[in-house]
Amino acid sequence: MAEPWPLVTSKVMCSFPIYRLRQDTRRSPKTGKDHTFLVLDSTDWVNIVPVTPQGNVVMIRQFRHGTASMVLEIPGGMMDLDGETPQEAALRELLEETGYVAETCIHLGSVHPNPAIQNNRCHTFLAGNVRRERPQRLEGTEDIDVLEVPFEDIPGLIDRGEITHALVLIAFFWYQRYLDARGIGRPQRMG
Amino acid sequence: MAEPWPLVTSKVMCSFPIYRLRQDTRRSPKTGKDHTFLVLDSTDWVNIVPVTPQGNVVMIRQFRHGTASMVLEIPGGMMDLDGETPQEAALRELLEETGYVAETCIHLGSVHPNPAIQNNRCHTFLAGNVRRERPQRLEGTEDIDVLEVPFEDIPGLIDRGEITHALVLIAFFWYQRYLDARGIGRPQRMG
Repeated sequence: MAEPWPLVTSKVMCSFPIYRLRQDTRRSPKTGKDHTFLVLDSTDWVNIVPVTPQGNVVMIRQFRHGTASMVLEIPGGMMDLDGETPQEAALRELLEETGYVAETCIHLGSVHPNPAIQNNRCHTFLAGNVRRERPQRLEGTEDIDVLEVPFEDIPGLIDRGEITHALVLIAFFWYQRYLDARGIGRPQRMG
Repeated sequence: MAEPWPLVTSKVMCSFPIYRLRQDTRRSPKTGKDHTFLVLDSTDWVNIVPVTPQGNVVMIRQFRHGTASMVLEIPGGMMDLDGETPQEAALRELLEETGYVAETCIHLGSVHPNPAIQNNRCHTFLAGNVRRERPQRLEGTEDIDVLEVPFEDIPGLIDRGEITHALVLIAFFWYQRYLDARGIGRPQRMG
């Protein structure tokens, strides 16, 4: 039966603003031999499904440097290191990236974005009765369009490959489960 | 309106077996200033939902070095560089990690695991009528348990936090959409 690998040594290879690249040496419980593995060591991430009283989802569109393409997604980002809770981080990102505030906020679910190479989690929240309160407050390199999308348009956007960000799909997956658990119908199913 | 950022220069910072860390310099269309961004440059990933004639999903359990924990997931991995198609890669990983072969195989969907920092995609397949044909053929550091899980147990495993791997949840999300689109009922809904 597969078992955990004890840690032998751990060292930081390089530090960047959004993560540290760490090399862990671990011992195989099967062979007793040591092997090295790279880990992206990072704070947890958050994202948020902001829903207006009319049932629109507040989405954002921005250039993403990984895929070098414009990406349709929901607000989100990294947790600050100063003791911010995941919910505070999600509401902060919502306000910064869109200028919207929420009347209610609940935790929908959390995942590990990639247990093979990253140590962090991504926490998803649902923001209810959101409304635009002030202009965006973007960081240095951010340039973000804000758009309201009727929830019933989301399945079509997924089918047509216009929403492809894994952590955004996960957020809608959690939201659909939340609606299902409460027997809340929608014009068209998401999941 | 947000626009793509033209590439100024690109250089590889370090190369590892599973990805290259690349630094791209791009010019902001808004300010005209140059900024640098880190990209994990990697081949595409694949994963596969293997379903037995009895309706069980063939899952695997292994120690993952990112989270330093035992992770319940589905077979998957990286595409080889030698011209392998995503479907060939998915069936190869299924065979290597579990010893199972499939009678049918279809593409369920593809995502970008993280457009902010990675350039690759993850392609998910559904393998039908799978059966165990031979022992696993594991690579150097792999130590993998294989287990068959009734599909109707999956929602409970998600609710109890026993399945937390984002790309595994995405695979079940695609599979549920596939079943829904064909009006195929299940004892309990996944999504």
